[in-house]
Amino acid sequence: MSTRIFPTVQDAENAFYEALERADLEAMMAVWSEDEEIVCVHPAGQRLAGQAQVREGWRQMFAGGPGMRVQIGQQVVAAGMMVAVHSVHEIITVAGEQRPRPPMVATNVYLRTPAGWRMVVHHASPAPGEPAADAAAEPSAPKILH
Amino acid sequence: MSTRIFPTVQDAENAFYEALERADLEAMMAVWSEDEEIVCVHPAGQRLAGQAQVREGWRQMFAGGPGMRVQIGQQVVAAGMMVAVHSVHEIITVAGEQRPRPPMVATNVYLRTPAGWRMVVHHASPAPGEPAADAAAEPSAPKILH
Repeated sequence: MSTRIFPTVQDAENAFYEALERADLEAMMAVWSEDEEIVCVHPAGQRLAGQAQVREGWRQMFAGGPGMRVQIGQQVVAAGMMVAVHSVHEIITVAGEQRPRPPMVATNVYLRTPAGWRMVVHHASPAPGEPAADAAAEPSAPKILH
Repeated sequence: MSTRIFPTVQDAENAFYEALERADLEAMMAVWSEDEEIVCVHPAGQRLAGQAQVREGWRQMFAGGPGMRVQIGQQVVAAGMMVAVHSVHEIITVAGEQRPRPPMVATNVYLRTPAGWRMVVHHASPAPGEPAADAAAEPSAPKILH
């Protein structure tokens, strides 16, 4: 499908949030693994599993075009040779709104594939009561898996 | 801390949900990695990161004692030598209630440590509209990571 290569996990994560901001379905799906064992949970949404469901979920979300800015913060990382897990806070500002919405917490899991790092899990849910002011805090030192 | 060894990922996952049903804090924490890079997101809760926050979250949840049954279904598995990711639906029945509550979707990430498999991420959120009748469906065939 896609020929984009993400040499690092962070490249893949950056591409994920760029695609989200641009509401770019093909760029979004290029971040995902081409396997069927992929899982996407949008905030307050049901689980989407496999290529068809995950793509359809993004298609619906992107149908209205781009309209949000996403700031990522408070990243907690567990990184190995073949798998990486990122926990991040997503601070979303919707076009036309003065203030960011309450933060989301997302668990993002990436695999190292022959085509570089790809996402296999995105699980996002509202994180009530999180202090948005901390969103720009430095990410924690990455944990090296065994 | 704990001397419990979980030889397989499923052993660790079973112990996690048993501890949840029994509201057993020590059994729960024995499932978790002893590293600081652990993350727990309870449904509609803020992210808990590190040993102290994760333990305190479970302590508060267990303060009322045991009172729920948890049925696990629709498991999607990505399993490697050192890391495993499980996506499951949790069907929770609270004591005294006739019917299960609407399902939760949980992302559970496990690492293989010198002390066996341990949990590093538990992220649960409501999964509205999921057909509870499918909860007992066979788990999908595990995906072998590279």
